[in-house]
Amino acid sequence: MKKFCHINGKILLEEDASVSINDLGLLRGYAVFDFLRTYNGRPFLLQEHLNRLENSAKLVGLKVPLSKVRISKIIDELLKKNKLKETTIKIIVTGGASKDGLTFDINSPTVIIIAKEIHQLQVELYKKGVKMITYDFQRNNSGAKTTDYITMLKLQNKKEKQKAFEILYVNRGLVLEGATSNIFFFKKNTLITPKNNILAGTIRKFVLGLAKKKFKVEERDVKVNEIKSITEAFLTSTTREVLPVVKIDSNKIGNAKVGENTKWLMDVFKNKTYLL
Amino acid sequence: MKKFCHINGKILLEEDASVSINDLGLLRGYAVFDFLRTYNGRPFLLQEHLNRLENSAKLVGLKVPLSKVRISKIIDELLKKNKLKETTIKIIVTGGASKDGLTFDINSPTVIIIAKEIHQLQVELYKKGVKMITYDFQRNNSGAKTTDYITMLKLQNKKEKQKAFEILYVNRGLVLEGATSNIFFFKKNTLITPKNNILAGTIRKFVLGLAKKKFKVEERDVKVNEIKSITEAFLTSTTREVLPVVKIDSNKIGNAKVGENTKWLMDVFKNKTYLL
Repeated sequence: MKKFCHINGKILLEEDASVSINDLGLLRGYAVFDFLRTYNGRPFLLQEHLNRLENSAKLVGLKVPLSKVRISKIIDELLKKNKLKETTIKIIVTGGASKDGLTFDINSPTVIIIAKEIHQLQVELYKKGVKMITYDFQRNNSGAKTTDYITMLKLQNKKEKQKAFEILYVNRGLVLEGATSNIFFFKKNTLITPKNNILAGTIRKFVLGLAKKKFKVEERDVKVNEIKSITEAFLTSTTREVLPVVKIDSNKIGNAKVGENTKWLMDVFKNKTYLL
Repeated sequence: MKKFCHINGKILLEEDASVSINDLGLLRGYAVFDFLRTYNGRPFLLQEHLNRLENSAKLVGLKVPLSKVRISKIIDELLKKNKLKETTIKIIVTGGASKDGLTFDINSPTVIIIAKEIHQLQVELYKKGVKMITYDFQRNNSGAKTTDYITMLKLQNKKEKQKAFEILYVNRGLVLEGATSNIFFFKKNTLITPKNNILAGTIRKFVLGLAKKKFKVEERDVKVNEIKSITEAFLTSTTREVLPVVKIDSNKIGNAKVGENTKWLMDVFKNKTYLL
């Protein structure tokens, strides 16, 4: 079925929605976005995602031209029109059209809101866990969720060849984040996750909140050579939720089996979101 | 007058040309480009620009789907239709449309070719020279000309406030390149320009060729603290050609006047391109 999206004040069929070739989001990669999903048809952590979108925009010199209430109403309209059970929602703000590919009006950005059906991962991946491969890289403007995913996309082939599910960025001896996720480690009953030079994931924060009820939690710099001594690992993201990681490069984590602490978090996460 | 451009095999009015909101060039900043100009109506260093475009694409996992001869013919057609005296030409290759914002077909990229009128800089800037301000940054995939200009654009306000013409990227104590140009320094009669972690500018190479006839030339790492001891500076780019730099941050270069060696290079450059 055809789906609708929002672009600059209009609701259009997604296949009819386009941006000018003079848009700085295309010409100069000048764009930020945020990405969330629904549970039981309602946007999850919407307020936090919209806060982060505004922060991302600010960090790179852009401005979100719509109020949070307005964005929320547009999302409601798209959810109604698209009639999907559960939906991902992407909100993009670019520098807008530019005559010379350089100058722009901060008050005339391009705003796109896309609501698509969620494709759930196979249950198998949650039971067996996934592999990550490390890559030496730190995102620019790492506190902002920009559209700069060149490095991730250029690594797609390598990732597939090595049968990895996700890239793990490491830089100057420190573990940072997944290309599209945050990373967590357990050392026995202590949960550890990188703190600096990463994108502050909303699911990361949500999971930290859940974990604090049961585990000691450390948000701190994590050295790459600590990977050898960890007992469990998992990644978090909007669509993957809590996904066990059982291998990082050639290092098997916890005998390559999903750990008990991770299972506990996956259960709590499922219960919390089921009840939303 | 309305101008034509080329997009995915079609010649369209620029104002009618657009890309899908599912294009990876927009969603993921996944795009490379090249940029050249005409002299006397003919594309300058076309072969080198097309070589570099292919190399940029390769470095990030993309492929230019058109032969150089085909691109050259499209450019000729645009130049005829647009009836401009002198033109800039931008060729963009993106990852193309993607259903999930992640997977793509390397053989179905989006190709856009835009030919616009050149806006010459004021003659005054060449006579008086310009100011650059440094910023601690190194582009990712620095050998590739990608569309990742977020850092440049977020610095536009700062640049204007400080009355600078261009940003000079420096990183880990080394001078790298301008945000949209290459940088050259003279120490007396020795011409020095950074060699590593920069985009290999076509005009940079062309100017090095001219300079070798008269000066000692060093392509090497240049330390930021060498700026204090240089006697002349200039930047090069397709549209700015050879533009004198007389101030970097608070450092006046050569008493803030355009140097004799730079003048010589500007003259030789002008004569060479005039005769094309």
